[in-house]
Amino acid sequence: MNKVIASSVIAGLFLSALPTASPLQTKTAQAASTCKVSAQPKNVIFMIGDGMGPSYTSAYRYMQDKPQTNGLDTVSFDNYLLGAQRTIAEDDHQNITDSASAATAMSSGVKTYNNAIAVDNDKTPVKTVLEQAKTVGKSTGLVATSEVTHATPAAYGAHDESRKNMPAIADDYYDEMINGKHKVDVILGGGKDYFKREDRNLIKEFKNDGYKFVDNKKGLLKAASNSKDKQILGLFSPGGMPKMIDRDANMPSLQDMTKTAIKKLNANKKGFFLMVEGSQIDWAGHANDVTGAMSEMRDFDLAFQEAINFAKTDCNTLVIATADHSTGGLSMGARGEYNFFVEPIRQMKHTSEYLRAQLMKDGADVDKIIKDNIGFQLTAAELQAIKDAVAAKNATAIEDAIERPVDTRSYTGWTTGGHTGEDVNVYGYGPGSTLWRGNMDNTDNAKRIFKFLK
Amino acid sequence: MNKVIASSVIAGLFLSALPTASPLQTKTAQAASTCKVSAQPKNVIFMIGDGMGPSYTSAYRYMQDKPQTNGLDTVSFDNYLLGAQRTIAEDDHQNITDSASAATAMSSGVKTYNNAIAVDNDKTPVKTVLEQAKTVGKSTGLVATSEVTHATPAAYGAHDESRKNMPAIADDYYDEMINGKHKVDVILGGGKDYFKREDRNLIKEFKNDGYKFVDNKKGLLKAASNSKDKQILGLFSPGGMPKMIDRDANMPSLQDMTKTAIKKLNANKKGFFLMVEGSQIDWAGHANDVTGAMSEMRDFDLAFQEAINFAKTDCNTLVIATADHSTGGLSMGARGEYNFFVEPIRQMKHTSEYLRAQLMKDGADVDKIIKDNIGFQLTAAELQAIKDAVAAKNATAIEDAIERPVDTRSYTGWTTGGHTGEDVNVYGYGPGSTLWRGNMDNTDNAKRIFKFLK
Repeated sequence: MNKVIASSVIAGLFLSALPTASPLQTKTAQAASTCKVSAQPKNVIFMIGDGMGPSYTSAYRYMQDKPQTNGLDTVSFDNYLLGAQRTIAEDDHQNITDSASAATAMSSGVKTYNNAIAVDNDKTPVKTVLEQAKTVGKSTGLVATSEVTHATPAAYGAHDESRKNMPAIADDYYDEMINGKHKVDVILGGGKDYFKREDRNLIKEFKNDGYKFVDNKKGLLKAASNSKDKQILGLFSPGGMPKMIDRDANMPSLQDMTKTAIKKLNANKKGFFLMVEGSQIDWAGHANDVTGAMSEMRDFDLAFQEAINFAKTDCNTLVIATADHSTGGLSMGARGEYNFFVEPIRQMKHTSEYLRAQLMKDGADVDKIIKDNIGFQLTAAELQAIKDAVAAKNATAIEDAIERPVDTRSYTGWTTGGHTGEDVNVYGYGPGSTLWRGNMDNTDNAKRIFKFLK
Repeated sequence: MNKVIASSVIAGLFLSALPTASPLQTKTAQAASTCKVSAQPKNVIFMIGDGMGPSYTSAYRYMQDKPQTNGLDTVSFDNYLLGAQRTIAEDDHQNITDSASAATAMSSGVKTYNNAIAVDNDKTPVKTVLEQAKTVGKSTGLVATSEVTHATPAAYGAHDESRKNMPAIADDYYDEMINGKHKVDVILGGGKDYFKREDRNLIKEFKNDGYKFVDNKKGLLKAASNSKDKQILGLFSPGGMPKMIDRDANMPSLQDMTKTAIKKLNANKKGFFLMVEGSQIDWAGHANDVTGAMSEMRDFDLAFQEAINFAKTDCNTLVIATADHSTGGLSMGARGEYNFFVEPIRQMKHTSEYLRAQLMKDGADVDKIIKDNIGFQLTAAELQAIKDAVAAKNATAIEDAIERPVDTRSYTGWTTGGHTGEDVNVYGYGPGSTLWRGNMDNTDNAKRIFKFLK
């Protein structure tokens, strides 16, 4: 642990969310001696930390640093760095990618315009690795903390000229059959509103076709342990799921969903393809909310460790974890200061998004909500800024007024509410993973995975 | 080439500075068939792009993209990405490193405080890989575009409790002998003022001991081709050298210096250790000057290619290129825009630093200097801001008034005038280079290189 970090009072959710023991390295050694790694993967778990640029994984390492150890502790990702990928879109107007174009590149190997969901620049559908996996008889899954119809998962399981058409994307998940079967066996995430609509009830349709439907953590875990539930549709919120730091006990984590998906899909002897997205690292980046960003990094990390631990005992599974782009121009250190202080972030009990919702309720006790959830002392001006924003009922201003004091104290920097163009890291483990070494184009992900799906 | 980039008018120094043919890949293939790569390197070339965080190499790729090709062209670094390194210092007050602490970590394998030149936290000198190379009979070199006594080269060839003591650091280069010999055989860079001082003339002392002294490009190239000149001291400017885009014909490039150093050092059959620093990527980052940053990236890239080409024909040389930290919180894309436009940067004939010096001369024709050197149309307000800053004789304000219009048009973002804490990329080639794969600590550089120096 770093001395400067050590000097801080350690508080808040993040350290308590640490597993009491981190068995990853021990397990590695054990697994390596108990099974023979195959030459080529039977299963592929492709994980996307949406918006997870290099600054996010580095900042997350400071967040996770433990006070009782010497030096800066490493995090799970550090054991699996393979290289980086270039993310540029093929778009007539924008040379920084959006999530739809990047996910299409990674799912199909085709560069396309921003907004495209598995269609090329002529709007012609392009085959995805998930579809190819289903074609060759593997099981398939999509897991996300956004709406499961959002750009990234959509680009694996649907085709649309626009990411905005989320009802049509949900329809695709049901309607686009491969060899007479639904193409996605396990669908877990947010976005119930896009499945149960006035014009159509896809939940009912999926259930009629034998899918187990669940909408809370208990139901998910029950389905996970019931071997009769082979296909699952799990939709845990109307839109995006709450961020990890804001979840209640009914809400599964990305790790819960990943574990369940792996368990279900692994029942197929022919193997599986699973895409897992930590969707809201990006959303926090857009909001310039470092608390939310670190919350979602933790959620993604635990899901990554779940996948890695499975792969280490399975020996036939390739795990790749990467990002689609970076978001927000996040920097560790700002305004000339040579420090990135994590304790103000750790001292936040919830995201600004969550607190804004509490603060905007009728009769909300503003002082109490702030005192209970912001673990450091606000200046009088900072407190007044929040109160003024609440009085004005300005949601964006409220969130901003909560986030800026965290940035000020942590020396977090931001340059944009949009995406940025730097390369993103690529992590991986398992048979075939060495192909991912070095600097690559985002389309190479699909090109390499297709070769494993014959 | 990307469509959005293609739509720009291509102008300025950067494309004209491209080699007319880029023989790197061809040479690679030829070299691979003509020599046998050794298991362990005889020579080590360690290259540091000071401040060259991940956003810099990605931005540079956009800068170098050629209009006549499809897609975004790769740059030399893309062929050699091995991983990334963690840069945190062991400092009681700062958890983001400075160049001195990071260079000490890389040169000696010891974490220390910011400001430390190859001394540990108790201010005790620590042995550097350059010193170990000299101890085992290899030749050694230090090349930089800053003062060659600046933090990064100093941490390889000197010991001091503070990077600020540049005269004492210059003294160390001369005074600290190893086995009765000067420890640095080739010293090339800026900083003549620290060698020729009122209290001491180290240039004279080095010359008396057989070093060839040169102070311009012509002299350097002549010494390079004269086999009698075995040891060279080349000091090309009183302080830091001009940035590449600002150099005249008398000023060698980092590539010129690297080529000369390799030629001289390679005369030793026992091999050599050479540290090469692209020093001013960082300086441009501190100034939030994207034009200067891209100029120095080009200078460093060409030096890197020079080293790689040597290594490919030599087969006994390890080349590692990395950074010490990132600087400025540079982002490609800013203020919500999904573009990083390089043409405004390409349209700059000089850095703001160079133009500021011109504009502050007595009787300077401000309109003409701006018209001749800024290839895009300034708004009336932007032009007035420059004129006001010139009238106020405010150097910082002049540079800022020149840089901001470039940022505005290119959508370049910055968050700080200092350093930032994200991991930096590691590139490499040659025997032993696979040890550098994955995520590593900056101290691992020295620990690995020491093993080759026995």
